Amino acid sequence: MNPTIELLKSHRSVRKFLDQKIPRETLLELIRAGQSAATSSHVQAYSVIHVTNPANREQIAELAGGQPYIASCSDFLVFCADMKRPTEASARTGAEVTRGMTEQFLVASVDTALMAQNVVVAAESEGLGICYIGGIRNNPQPISEMLQLPDHVFPVFGLCLGYPDPDKLPEVKPRLPVEAVLKEDTYTEDAQHVATFDSNMKLYYRGRSSTNKDTDWSHNLTPLFSTKVRPHMRDFLLKRGFDMK
Amino acid sequence: MNPTIELLKSHRSVRKFLDQKIPRETLLELIRAGQSAATSSHVQAYSVIHVTNPANREQIAELAGGQPYIASCSDFLVFCADMKRPTEASARTGAEVTRGMTEQFLVASVDTALMAQNVVVAAESEGLGICYIGGIRNNPQPISEMLQLPDHVFPVFGLCLGYPDPDKLPEVKPRLPVEAVLKEDTYTEDAQHVATFDSNMKLYYRGRSSTNKDTDWSHNLTPLFSTKVRPHMRDFLLKRGFDMK
Repeated sequence: MNPTIELLKSHRSVRKFLDQKIPRETLLELIRAGQSAATSSHVQAYSVIHVTNPANREQIAELAGGQPYIASCSDFLVFCADMKRPTEASARTGAEVTRGMTEQFLVASVDTALMAQNVVVAAESEGLGICYIGGIRNNPQPISEMLQLPDHVFPVFGLCLGYPDPDKLPEVKPRLPVEAVLKEDTYTEDAQHVATFDSNMKLYYRGRSSTNKDTDWSHNLTPLFSTKVRPHMRDFLLKRGFDMK
Repeated sequence: MNPTIELLKSHRSVRKFLDQKIPRETLLELIRAGQSAATSSHVQAYSVIHVTNPANREQIAELAGGQPYIASCSDFLVFCADMKRPTEASARTGAEVTRGMTEQFLVASVDTALMAQNVVVAAESEGLGICYIGGIRNNPQPISEMLQLPDHVFPVFGLCLGYPDPDKLPEVKPRLPVEAVLKEDTYTEDAQHVATFDSNMKLYYRGRSSTNKDTDWSHNLTPLFSTKVRPHMRDFLLKRGFDMK
């Protein structure tokens, strides 16, 4: 296992940070590393909003469902899928552009995620800790207004960055057996692997250093699917110009 | 710049490979590194199909718009967003599950992309070359049938992996100025940065070692937006159970 793979496999979400700022030049380097990720047809369909205003960070921490590390980490970024820049660039050449296709929504979301994951790997290689914040999709409309996001741009997730508190580093969380995820030639059922994983997760949840609980993976997923999760997302995206045609 | 960031910044898409196989244990290690990526609420909403059947790889190469390296690279993977596994795991605990939400489509697509990007970084750290294949979305239905993908699973993109031919390594392709992508506190217009980038890209396209052309970024985007790109995607996803509710 080479050091990069070792780094990838040591990932955990960090929510307790030291009171230490990331140098501006380091932040720029992380974003440049992000931009080096593959991008569909070179479209680079993303923008990153660096939220520095403390009042805005406090407000996002609330809007994301009460996640105080959004305000307290060194730097907080909002990764946006951005179809405005490329479609306007194309329009300026005189082309008539089509927008609102489902495919474009998917391309922009995937482009944004590939880019963000490179930022994350770069950050962790610099000894930083990170936490993705999907919770910004709890209230995407007020957050989009605060960040003055125009049409054809939407916030996909946030990212907390900072120097991790070494005394409060969480354990690395187990993952599904590789045999469940990697399938040969055709899709095969994996309930057996899930059962094995449930046993592992039960031990993990019982034994971990903070917020122990008596559950397993399958039971823990229930709140995700038992209600309509973020039912506002469809209309929010339509209003932004992501028409899902 | 540390060696990991240097690695990230040296990424290019590789389409010419040596005739040399990736050891099985290395492939498994890449997938495990992929699984270590962050995942929304631990849902791990992805499966990877390792396509080994040569006839199937030839056929996918055609269906993806004529990309022969899909057949000739060492290993070809199809990364699928998978909401079947987690919703069925939850249902087995007795929960009533909701499916087909737009939010779930987004979560599964992003989870898949974060995971894939970690696989890519791990692969490149092992000296391998990669090329993402969005072209599988040209014909997602026959490819899904070939791979026997069930409902609530769809192919997001493919990935070619192999040892790059060192004599045919493409240049690293430039990216937008970091000032265009990283914005402070609010979204700001970036047409000026795009103009600078267009000049850079014009020089790049003229000077690169293969398939020189006289264009720039903005003009090169036109085919992407001048027609309805992959207009079948919406109905394809609906049929798969991704209802975009």
